[in-house]
Amino acid sequence: MLASRSPQRDAILRQLKIPFRVHVSGFGELGEGTDARALAEANARGKAHAALAHTRLGAGELVLGVDTVVVLEGRVFGKARDADEALHFVTALAGATHTVISGLCLTDGERAEVGSASTDVTFRSLDDAAAASYIATGEWHDRAGAYAIQGIGSALVSRVEGDYWNVVGLPVALLLERLAALGSPPFSWL
Amino acid sequence: MLASRSPQRDAILRQLKIPFRVHVSGFGELGEGTDARALAEANARGKAHAALAHTRLGAGELVLGVDTVVVLEGRVFGKARDADEALHFVTALAGATHTVISGLCLTDGERAEVGSASTDVTFRSLDDAAAASYIATGEWHDRAGAYAIQGIGSALVSRVEGDYWNVVGLPVALLLERLAALGSPPFSWL
Repeated sequence: MLASRSPQRDAILRQLKIPFRVHVSGFGELGEGTDARALAEANARGKAHAALAHTRLGAGELVLGVDTVVVLEGRVFGKARDADEALHFVTALAGATHTVISGLCLTDGERAEVGSASTDVTFRSLDDAAAASYIATGEWHDRAGAYAIQGIGSALVSRVEGDYWNVVGLPVALLLERLAALGSPPFSWL
Repeated sequence: MLASRSPQRDAILRQLKIPFRVHVSGFGELGEGTDARALAEANARGKAHAALAHTRLGAGELVLGVDTVVVLEGRVFGKARDADEALHFVTALAGATHTVISGLCLTDGERAEVGSASTDVTFRSLDDAAAASYIATGEWHDRAGAYAIQGIGSALVSRVEGDYWNVVGLPVALLLERLAALGSPPFSWL
């Protein structure tokens, strides 16, 4: 069960053909913290446990909670509140390399696998007109760091190092590793 | 104009919201060669020029030809001919890092921008059952290296270094650089 309302995470699980259902946990994400990795893992654990508390799992069913944050030079970028803040985020990320960290919690209600994955993303340099054009697309809404790498935002990015899907919102390599640890090796769900 | 029948390239241009039309060139790809980069660039140039020869460009219109190959330890992997060869490809790539090279040719009929991009992709280790399960999905058809990173094949990959979209089939960062060189900077098409 996916404890997230994110359409991106939904799409990645469908792409992998992993069967799942969605239960939005209503967990209030923590937005502040000095350690981005600990923050993302705490949010992932909170989402998974909130979902566990409100539903009954089927036989063999697992709950997946995920939280993604963007970090540049020690500063954590969450979701922008408005277009001005989104422009500020994208301008700060331009011409630089930031890190996308996703915390993941996978649990069957007894055992819990918690971890995080980190991917470096390099943005091309952007002039003011290009940054403003991107923000005007509205794609920044509800996205950590105010961009969508799987959308028009792919034009912002020159390089990725690590798990690409982690930047979209779901660390696939880490998920598969933890699924295997809980008894489901790669492709066993097909 | 996109001189390719690839649905992946089509999807990436749509995602970027770059307006385009498709003209399949009928150019016969060269499959052999010792230098993968030169091979991919020659195929890209051949596709673009074959399309140019058969259509009339609109004002400001450009032709884009692209060819993608997979290279492991100096060996070029094209498209597998059958499921046995596909299984052989995926087994060879498992637990190792290979390089995906796309050649690109962008031309207005007078000037031609030709180049290539290279991305390193690391596959997880796979046991025989996992490799056979992946091949049984049929996703290997018509794909260089016999996998689709944007499909179920995302479960094969543990790490990407470079332009992710290059692995899907279109080197977006290189395309944007060459579009800018021909007068269209990022997002100017929106």
